Amino acid sequence: MSSIPEAPSYPVDRTNRVKRLHQRGFYDHETVHRLLDAAALCHVSYVVDGQPYCTPTLFWREGSTLYWHGSSASRMLRNLSTGEPACLAVTHLDSLVLARCGFNHSADYRSVMCFGQAKLVSDPAEKERALVMMVDRFFPGRTATLRATTVQETKATAVIAMSIERASAKIRAKGVADDEEDYALPIYAERLPVQTVIGAPEPCERLPPDVARTADLAEYQKGRLLEDALGEAYRRAYADAAEG
Amino acid sequence: MSSIPEAPSYPVDRTNRVKRLHQRGFYDHETVHRLLDAAALCHVSYVVDGQPYCTPTLFWREGSTLYWHGSSASRMLRNLSTGEPACLAVTHLDSLVLARCGFNHSADYRSVMCFGQAKLVSDPAEKERALVMMVDRFFPGRTATLRATTVQETKATAVIAMSIERASAKIRAKGVADDEEDYALPIYAERLPVQTVIGAPEPCERLPPDVARTADLAEYQKGRLLEDALGEAYRRAYADAAEG
Repeated sequence: MSSIPEAPSYPVDRTNRVKRLHQRGFYDHETVHRLLDAAALCHVSYVVDGQPYCTPTLFWREGSTLYWHGSSASRMLRNLSTGEPACLAVTHLDSLVLARCGFNHSADYRSVMCFGQAKLVSDPAEKERALVMMVDRFFPGRTATLRATTVQETKATAVIAMSIERASAKIRAKGVADDEEDYALPIYAERLPVQTVIGAPEPCERLPPDVARTADLAEYQKGRLLEDALGEAYRRAYADAAEG
Repeated sequence: MSSIPEAPSYPVDRTNRVKRLHQRGFYDHETVHRLLDAAALCHVSYVVDGQPYCTPTLFWREGSTLYWHGSSASRMLRNLSTGEPACLAVTHLDSLVLARCGFNHSADYRSVMCFGQAKLVSDPAEKERALVMMVDRFFPGRTATLRATTVQETKATAVIAMSIERASAKIRAKGVADDEEDYALPIYAERLPVQTVIGAPEPCERLPPDVARTADLAEYQKGRLLEDALGEAYRRAYADAAEG
């Protein structure tokens, strides 16, 4: 009998161990990466002079490295450029939960926290690749169809990379969970689902005639879950990148 | 001629001044509060031993104070209980923007960052009120219909309060914005709207017969924008509280 190899996981220590309701915690690459790749928006925490900041930004993953960007002038990037401890979080809110007592009111969610040292990408080849994937991770192959990036634009864009040293995912997916003796009470309880969906695409009003939506944007359709479209685009983008 | 009084605003200093694309920055109470009250989920940043953490949590506002909660045992609350600098952020993602060059790819969003000292609520009366509003801010009047909170439950719930000392809102709402000379290029560009909506309510499967959805949950309807329902519930909850 052969033993089943353990799934690749992020190391666990006091930084990332899920302490509260620890049965909700996951550390395996598959769970952590799936939640990251289903998102466009994250919040990044960093510290300047003892003051924590929490900044929303678009981001993406490549292997065990997270990337995000901003103007070279931004406060966060200036302070992270030499390698600063950071925490990047993604949260998918799935429901609000109305229980039979205040204490059991809750929410279903899937969240992930990643810890590492955020560093400015200074290697020109890594930066060039990152500026392509910053677009193509969301819209595979799109960069090749665009007006080329200028030297000034590249200079004005700072790219930050953070190798994931620790990570944890936390998932609640159980809806209403009341104390056993409370179920008989004449109190209404429900799970109220919440979804983030794509609306009808709004073509730029200044498109020249005969410029139509490209076929490879088909996954971004009205009514589709944003996380499904993002996950699919991600897999397609990195399958292409592996082949290319 | 009388001068128009300035709208109440949060003070601006180097902590909260929007530096990058400063024309997107707002500091007035109305803008900051409206974005906060349209959300259930925030991310809170805090520092432990120099390591930043970014934690998702439900929260709400009362005047210029933000509240959130968790188990008394949680890492964040243990560390914030004596009054620690924190930053609470809320982000509404409104679109992904596909432009004619990589540099102008963007997103529409409305975000707010609040800075202050997070403190454990220890006053019994303030804590009791917070435990009511933790539910009633989302579902006005609901606490009065629930099984009463026990002493053990109150003990097991830590409530954190943070008076907003600095705050800034940042809004991008312009869709595709390309360089003037790029509009003529034969490249497709669009704004891809993103919305967070409510799904069909899922009543608990263990409801006794004759227990129906209460009329005051009507604002939480399938297909409605979550932020609209939350904003309406918020206004109703605090109008009731002011009258009560």
